[in-house]
Amino acid sequence: MPDLAQHIDQNRQRYLDELIEYLKVPSISSSSAHKQEVRRAGEQLAAHMLRVGLSRSQMFPTPLHPIVYGEWLGAPGKPTVLIYGHYDVQPVDPLELWKSPPFEPEIRDGELYARGSVDDKGQIYVHLKAIEAHLKVHGKLPLNVKFIAEGEEEIGSEHLEPFMQEQAQLLTADFVVVSDTPMYGRGIPSICYGLRGLAYSQIDFEGPTVDLHSGSLGGIVANPVNEMSRLIAALKDADGVVQVPGFYDDVRALTERERKMFADLPQNDEGWRKTTGSPRLHGEKGYTTLERLWARPTLDVNGIWGGFSGEGSKTIIPSRCGCKVSMRLVPDQSSAKALDLLEKFIKKLCPPTVKMTFTRMHGGEPWLADISHPCFDAAVRALERAFGARAVYIREGGSIPFLRAITESTGKPCLLLGFGLPDENSHAPNEKLNLENYQKGILAAAYLYEELAR
Amino acid sequence: MPDLAQHIDQNRQRYLDELIEYLKVPSISSSSAHKQEVRRAGEQLAAHMLRVGLSRSQMFPTPLHPIVYGEWLGAPGKPTVLIYGHYDVQPVDPLELWKSPPFEPEIRDGELYARGSVDDKGQIYVHLKAIEAHLKVHGKLPLNVKFIAEGEEEIGSEHLEPFMQEQAQLLTADFVVVSDTPMYGRGIPSICYGLRGLAYSQIDFEGPTVDLHSGSLGGIVANPVNEMSRLIAALKDADGVVQVPGFYDDVRALTERERKMFADLPQNDEGWRKTTGSPRLHGEKGYTTLERLWARPTLDVNGIWGGFSGEGSKTIIPSRCGCKVSMRLVPDQSSAKALDLLEKFIKKLCPPTVKMTFTRMHGGEPWLADISHPCFDAAVRALERAFGARAVYIREGGSIPFLRAITESTGKPCLLLGFGLPDENSHAPNEKLNLENYQKGILAAAYLYEELAR
Repeated sequence: MPDLAQHIDQNRQRYLDELIEYLKVPSISSSSAHKQEVRRAGEQLAAHMLRVGLSRSQMFPTPLHPIVYGEWLGAPGKPTVLIYGHYDVQPVDPLELWKSPPFEPEIRDGELYARGSVDDKGQIYVHLKAIEAHLKVHGKLPLNVKFIAEGEEEIGSEHLEPFMQEQAQLLTADFVVVSDTPMYGRGIPSICYGLRGLAYSQIDFEGPTVDLHSGSLGGIVANPVNEMSRLIAALKDADGVVQVPGFYDDVRALTERERKMFADLPQNDEGWRKTTGSPRLHGEKGYTTLERLWARPTLDVNGIWGGFSGEGSKTIIPSRCGCKVSMRLVPDQSSAKALDLLEKFIKKLCPPTVKMTFTRMHGGEPWLADISHPCFDAAVRALERAFGARAVYIREGGSIPFLRAITESTGKPCLLLGFGLPDENSHAPNEKLNLENYQKGILAAAYLYEELAR
Repeated sequence: MPDLAQHIDQNRQRYLDELIEYLKVPSISSSSAHKQEVRRAGEQLAAHMLRVGLSRSQMFPTPLHPIVYGEWLGAPGKPTVLIYGHYDVQPVDPLELWKSPPFEPEIRDGELYARGSVDDKGQIYVHLKAIEAHLKVHGKLPLNVKFIAEGEEEIGSEHLEPFMQEQAQLLTADFVVVSDTPMYGRGIPSICYGLRGLAYSQIDFEGPTVDLHSGSLGGIVANPVNEMSRLIAALKDADGVVQVPGFYDDVRALTERERKMFADLPQNDEGWRKTTGSPRLHGEKGYTTLERLWARPTLDVNGIWGGFSGEGSKTIIPSRCGCKVSMRLVPDQSSAKALDLLEKFIKKLCPPTVKMTFTRMHGGEPWLADISHPCFDAAVRALERAFGARAVYIREGGSIPFLRAITESTGKPCLLLGFGLPDENSHAPNEKLNLENYQKGILAAAYLYEELAR
């Protein structure tokens, strides 16, 4: 009888074939035209959970896309791991930039190209195949497994939290594992221990009640776009330092250990610059690129509008304009407080010559794991066994709503083990999954269950 | 035989009926669906010119809407006046705000409501009826008359200047008269002696080559919307003073006489505020509302765009954004120099973290008449005879392309005698012409020809 590693190696082609089949389902959660396809992806996932050997799987309806749950609880006295993933995918526009159609998976140079290959269907399959391998080789898993996969991650996970509250009992576990982030680099297994939070707002301005002729009436009233621009300009200085009073008060400073961990990683500023396509990198002085990305808060205008934006010229003073402004937050900032501070500052700056409306939109709290918990050592061991390299600790600039929700509701430690790569194009054309990472990811997940069971 | 005033008074109803018929033609120049109607309005005008007694009328085709020309040159040895007007009208949106349909003229409370009633068909008819009265009463005009009416004034008069260059000989005259501006107020006959110029630009910015995830990549690149806002904010201070170096260098200061003329006019800041609907008036310190409107240059953002402007939230750092920025100019500023200065300043301020493209769009020069020319005294006398009140000198904040073109090509003095009112709604729903002004305007025009002939 082969051992786990041999078994996983022998089934390489089948693992790939099965994933390719699953990637053909266009489960674009943001598209109402694809609602049935999202459902089909959920149904196939529930069926596949049973096929790999979970003892139960179930689809939970939500007001939009179903949540799929599976479990294997045949290891009494052993800990329970809750694995999270999502089976919905991003839209595919602009379609013309794809080298092969997004839902006709194609392998080129050791990469599997398809929408959802890495984000997150491939990483769901990493865990399903690892579970399958244990059950095939040993007839059992080294610990109890619960598996939850949602169909709305790419559109904000709106119905996940209510579900988690309703099904709190079902989701109890000792550890949480999420595979939905990239590795730091090729051949560098990574554990993500921090995510930034978010505070989002919309600010609307009104000056004159109708668009005015800029000639006949220009010079006697405030132009709301000029005033809005003045307010936005006041939010950050030229170095990117946020000027909202109190904004940095609750920012937890990086520890010396963290600064050293980040500094010890291969630095690649030119790589980041190329990824963004910006003329050059830019940001807060006194912090490295990784520190700015992972451990410093930001403030960005996400959108702006007002007046005439068509071809040619129209000589108006716009009546209305507006912008979306959001902040990425780090521990120990809170989204409610960040919005309070922003609103207060904007209100103080806004001149009486225009009307301003500040609208609070969604927020999410930053997340930071305590890596002294033994499960992190387990993850490091598992990754090293599978990849033959020491795992690094990284953070991520974005948010995963599930993580915040599960941490807040259970307080259990969460492991973010991702098997993507920084150039995976997860929300862009030509999304891809590295085949070696897929295979090693399956092995690492299988080892992780062993290590966590110790 | 009745004198001129009696004749004009006796024909009041017919003047009104004829104008009403003409206002029924929906000659919206900006609408390609109305192209035939614009043409019909031109044809009716050409026919009407002959009916009132001009000895010749002609339609000149242009690439879009025709220019109508008429003349009566039966006063050898007498001066020639060139009268300008336009027979095209503004669009009528939003239609639901009209109390009576825009092309079904209706009289309410001594006002004739219809699109084009005051801008500018009614004012064209003022002159045609004045010409007719002279010819009916005296069998001749006191001076030679040339009449030009275009069909593209509301869409920028693109084909007027080429026509004027081709037909320079046809348009030679001693004076130019334009009736396309409002009076300063009810019962206050007004001569407009200054118009502002215009310099229009578009400024585009690019940061990252694609929209970036504001979480995953926020904090390491410049956000082009934030940078654009910083640049716009730098263009004016909080008091509305333009900060572009050199911008005010060529501004001709108001003379003491002008400041006194403006100050002697009835002041109505609350009226201006109501007209704009702004929370309060705002502008350069040290200048009255009229001085800011008529004799000070301005800088306004006419439109702005970038990133996500839909409902809800999208967490992106926009790749591209842009804005339209225009300046209203006063003597002796030039549109080319104003754009030079703006471009230079923007280029200097623009950080190397974003790419900026400055596009020069159309420009027009400010216009200021020398009111010491005797034809202005003639106009004052004519207006006083007709209205029984002393005429005032005013300026206007906007531009009339024809005026600039004719001044540049001929250098002849131009008289802007308008018979509209400040609340005439010329580009808005419920455009109206005061019937008393229509009638007195005809008389004033008839007297003006006499006074100019002296």
